[in-house]
Amino acid sequence: MVQGIEDVARAAGVSTATVSRALRGLPNVSAATRERVRSAALALGYVASPSAASLASGRMRTIGLLTPWVNRWFFANVIEGAERTLRAVGFDALLYTFDISREQPRREVDPGVLRRRVDGTLVVGMPLRDAEVQALEDLGQPLAFVGTGRDDHLTVRLDDHAAGTRATEHLVALGHRAIGHVSGTPDDHHSWSPPNARRAGWADALGAAGSPPLPGWEINGNFDVPGGRASTHTLLDAHPELTAVFAASDEMAMGVILAARDRGLRVPEDLSVIGIDGHDLGELVDLTTVSQDASGQGAQAAALLLELIAGGGSALQVIHPTRLVVRGSTGSPRSGDA
Amino acid sequence: MVQGIEDVARAAGVSTATVSRALRGLPNVSAATRERVRSAALALGYVASPSAASLASGRMRTIGLLTPWVNRWFFANVIEGAERTLRAVGFDALLYTFDISREQPRREVDPGVLRRRVDGTLVVGMPLRDAEVQALEDLGQPLAFVGTGRDDHLTVRLDDHAAGTRATEHLVALGHRAIGHVSGTPDDHHSWSPPNARRAGWADALGAAGSPPLPGWEINGNFDVPGGRASTHTLLDAHPELTAVFAASDEMAMGVILAARDRGLRVPEDLSVIGIDGHDLGELVDLTTVSQDASGQGAQAAALLLELIAGGGSALQVIHPTRLVVRGSTGSPRSGDA
Repeated sequence: MVQGIEDVARAAGVSTATVSRALRGLPNVSAATRERVRSAALALGYVASPSAASLASGRMRTIGLLTPWVNRWFFANVIEGAERTLRAVGFDALLYTFDISREQPRREVDPGVLRRRVDGTLVVGMPLRDAEVQALEDLGQPLAFVGTGRDDHLTVRLDDHAAGTRATEHLVALGHRAIGHVSGTPDDHHSWSPPNARRAGWADALGAAGSPPLPGWEINGNFDVPGGRASTHTLLDAHPELTAVFAASDEMAMGVILAARDRGLRVPEDLSVIGIDGHDLGELVDLTTVSQDASGQGAQAAALLLELIAGGGSALQVIHPTRLVVRGSTGSPRSGDA
Repeated sequence: MVQGIEDVARAAGVSTATVSRALRGLPNVSAATRERVRSAALALGYVASPSAASLASGRMRTIGLLTPWVNRWFFANVIEGAERTLRAVGFDALLYTFDISREQPRREVDPGVLRRRVDGTLVVGMPLRDAEVQALEDLGQPLAFVGTGRDDHLTVRLDDHAAGTRATEHLVALGHRAIGHVSGTPDDHHSWSPPNARRAGWADALGAAGSPPLPGWEINGNFDVPGGRASTHTLLDAHPELTAVFAASDEMAMGVILAARDRGLRVPEDLSVIGIDGHDLGELVDLTTVSQDASGQGAQAAALLLELIAGGGSALQVIHPTRLVVRGSTGSPRSGDA
């Protein structure tokens, strides 16, 4: 839950006016107070939107949004949140999409196009090659990441390893050990990508439970519903011993439920299913998930990027919290036989 | 299903080269042949993307996309389709969103911003005031609409009245007469808006069945899942005699199913539910719907807009087909009591 300026003031023991001055980088705030306010704001997820006046340095009043997809849950909601924040200060969003699953290899990000048109760039859940990150840096414009990122950039994301661990531990606590994993598009050249971290969280949690996963227990589900469905059939054909599946996104988890239905398997009696996201339709399909606030991440990243454009702010690493939402798609193994 | 150039050539009885020349407005094609090819292409839903060369008149190589939302099914998929088509010829999309449900009144579209930045504008499912349409026209740039539009503009859309009729007739054929309607955001000052046309289709179909709807049988569901759910509770509290609900979108229909579940009503035995869209998750929730190809509409509208920018094309009215997809959420009234 993102808090208001009053909560930050209370936590830092200062007035709201001081919070505002500290976060905007205005004078007459001591370094110690500024640091205390920044820490409180970070802990509470509060970001001050720069005033219109301080954004005068943004000449194009436009942010480039780089994203692989606009019509998947996480991406659509991050974009919505970012766009709402930008709109509030009169900024527009220039949308660049790169379909990382269809184009092999996908084309390079063109920094020249960005230079002429935007004041900064927000990269949404998109694995970039090192050369592309360098090219974006060479523009000399602020750069922020949502969902993926590196320690040397402003990044708003989850602790993806912890999210994978949390999902797997929920299944382990129910008694599962034979837990398959439907991962996203593999992008192994980036050790910081969410699919890899979620996969590692799954493997580590199973290892900690004394049952490290077999090599064949994971499969690529392409981060969409049809991919989750098709890959689950392949997975269960080869590994009928699996009693549960952890999917790296809710949309893939919905595909897992469809595949279970195709095969006459009951959920959760014959197969437990858990995802990551907190998809709006998760309640309707009774899906257990590790939920995240995608819209809030987009809004916060946009606000922090605007701070950088206004000349304040810094390359923060913001880790958004997750929440385990237990619904009917997970239960004990063979609980229906009891 | 959008067809390829070979299908158009076969239907028009000419070569694919002639189809290409005719649709691009190149010489050495007779007026009669050009007309025959255009008719065949229109009937088959085929649009030639202008070549990069003929698009040299597009100086900004950017299209403005005006849309109320990016994170709802129809809009996200139209944007995806449009963006894919634009990308193929090196055009970018500049996204402007206007939340028509939150802002009262929403701010005006600013044509000045568009003038400096885009070669044309695609308005996605967004009701515009007459003055805004006029302001966009005054820019002297091509303008196209998806989902909503007027006879004097390039428009790609459904026959929304027919879609509403089709959904209602499906319920009537099953034996329902007490059919409620969850409509979208009301925008009564635009007689061309999809919610109004779908609502009229519902009322006319019930009238034709000899049972015109009672005034209290319709309610605004705000075109989202929570709105569909909350409005259904209000609707059924006042009108427990309803045996079916037609929602003007699949997301609202999913909200109707959630509300039925909240009230302990079985779907379809106690309440039949039908939507419009063909949402990707409709199969998972077993939702009967009148489906449309949102991505295809976005792609086609973008291609036609590019034709206008390239100096060809005309203010076509393209009506996309719909398809009734019958699933488990509709059945005979009280069929569970049989």
